[in-house]
Amino acid sequence: MQKKTIIGVIGASEASPCGLKSAYQIGRLIARNGGVLVCGGLGGVMEAASRGCAEAGGDVIGILPGDSSSAANRYVSLPIVTGMGHARNVIIAQTAQALIAIEGGHGTLSEIAIALKIGRTVVQLNSWPQISTTTPQAQTPEQAIEMVFAELQKGELING
Amino acid sequence: MQKKTIIGVIGASEASPCGLKSAYQIGRLIARNGGVLVCGGLGGVMEAASRGCAEAGGDVIGILPGDSSSAANRYVSLPIVTGMGHARNVIIAQTAQALIAIEGGHGTLSEIAIALKIGRTVVQLNSWPQISTTTPQAQTPEQAIEMVFAELQKGELING
Amino acid sequence: MQKKTIIGVIGASEASPCGLKSAYQIGRLIARNGGVLVCGGLGGVMEAASRGCAEAGGDVIGILPGDSSSAANRYVSLPIVTGMGHARNVIIAQTAQALIAIEGGHGTLSEIAIALKIGRTVVQLNSWPQISTTTPQAQTPEQAIEMVFAELQKGELING
Amino acid sequence: MQKKTIIGVIGASEASPCGLKSAYQIGRLIARNGGVLVCGGLGGVMEAASRGCAEAGGDVIGILPGDSSSAANRYVSLPIVTGMGHARNVIIAQTAQALIAIEGGHGTLSEIAIALKIGRTVVQLNSWPQISTTTPQAQTPEQAIEMVFAELQKGELING
Repeated sequence: MQKKTIIGVIGASEASPCGLKSAYQIGRLIARNGGVLVCGGLGGVMEAASRGCAEAGGDVIGILPGDSSSAANRYVSLPIVTGMGHARNVIIAQTAQALIAIEGGHGTLSEIAIALKIGRTVVQLNSWPQISTTTPQAQTPEQAIEMVFAELQKGELING
Repeated sequence: MQKKTIIGVIGASEASPCGLKSAYQIGRLIARNGGVLVCGGLGGVMEAASRGCAEAGGDVIGILPGDSSSAANRYVSLPIVTGMGHARNVIIAQTAQALIAIEGGHGTLSEIAIALKIGRTVVQLNSWPQISTTTPQAQTPEQAIEMVFAELQKGELING
Repeated sequence: MQKKTIIGVIGASEASPCGLKSAYQIGRLIARNGGVLVCGGLGGVMEAASRGCAEAGGDVIGILPGDSSSAANRYVSLPIVTGMGHARNVIIAQTAQALIAIEGGHGTLSEIAIALKIGRTVVQLNSWPQISTTTPQAQTPEQAIEMVFAELQKGELING
Repeated sequence: MQKKTIIGVIGASEASPCGLKSAYQIGRLIARNGGVLVCGGLGGVMEAASRGCAEAGGDVIGILPGDSSSAANRYVSLPIVTGMGHARNVIIAQTAQALIAIEGGHGTLSEIAIALKIGRTVVQLNSWPQISTTTPQAQTPEQAIEMVFAELQKGELING
């Protein structure tokens, strides 16, 4: 069995109806492209993306901040119980091969910052455009997925 | 999609031929029982259990101490990149619904201790019997698996 | 013995001559105000602030990412060895009662984001002004220190 | 300012009257020998050792599992707010240059295990003698302190 392609979706427990719809669609597209979703495992953007991915048959890794798997949303198939609070954000950024940020507050900003620090691609969808002129900005869920998979293929061509 | 049953196998990078054989067999049996393996993702007992699980078609979560997925053994399908060194032991103990300890040194002992602290079942196979008179001791891989799944069913009956 | 006042200084291993000078001055002023410095314990802004604080007789807590205290700069009196890589940023943000950010890259941004997420005051000095219109911006080290201690006094008045 | 000598005292929130008395005495002796105490920052053995150290004028570092410094016992002068639950045990083991274990349950056992894994001296006082035939066992607080400082001096002679 090969390592699976793990895509991160980051965003807050509160989001606009449009952000939630985008998250759901992105979750679906991750599964349809054969990927696994990694996210924070809770509500809002995390739950919408999880639902999209699960409904399309994909696995959902939820990196949980608390000390019980019962806090995971119902679409998480693989709850990782860190008990590490905000430090779990770092694990999400490191575990994802590329990330899509949807809206989000300061928690999401911390994940984007760590991801950029370690050289991960972060595609943004109405998130934190002001922090970087070089981070790709997507207009639609489809475009975000396209950008992410294009970056991953580029990486594979370079690394092997 | 429901949450999957996640079983932990803990043990060291160095192990006896018998310990490695047991780890392999336990990995196989986890997959055949519909479970997912969680382990430290590196060599020795971790790799043998990963191989057994992967060859029987199961998913293998590797909770890695370093900051790159490249350190994972080749049977890990889902590398979780913590970059947290020994603190990743705590995540393994918390993420597994029950654990099997095979031989092991002080790292394994730290995982057993955390698992017992939070009330997880830890079945031992030639591991650290001296630390507890109430921790179940198995003689064979088959018996270890039986004990673990019996405990999980008991928990389900109690919790609903 | 009472809990001491712990002030965080965050910034990168590489900084402008002006940033380093500011960090040194801020470290001095933390000590002169009876505070303890908490920082990442390494070079650049962290070392300059540590030096300023140590030379003025203050204690310096270095929250280190690696697994040895030997990586700490020479002015750290109290090295905390986390071995947790970037996750140590979260500990710095949580441990400081208020923070001063000096320049900095994405690592510093992750610390600012976590600090804002948990409601800590973060005074910026040529750091990441674009992420918030409400985060106080200082022009000089003296002003940064004034802003930080004013906020802490306000908090004490409110909390009792 | 030089790095200070940091000694860890580990033990549980519940302890025997004798264990608490020993912890208090050990805290006093750490301060009188010019050391700083690091512990988990909460009650029981941790609080008794903290009180002893603080009353003798020493600094007390409390590595807290929760996300607020308010959980620290009143003798902690330097609360480190990890928010990382049981993973904070790893930070205590790594931060202390040597440790003294007083009684304790599975949490303490996890700290001893990590400390032994990374090569720290752990002197035990009615703690977990069954896990190692080579770990020094002390009969009194005075003897525990003697053993710890003797080990540290030996290390300094070797390392330069």
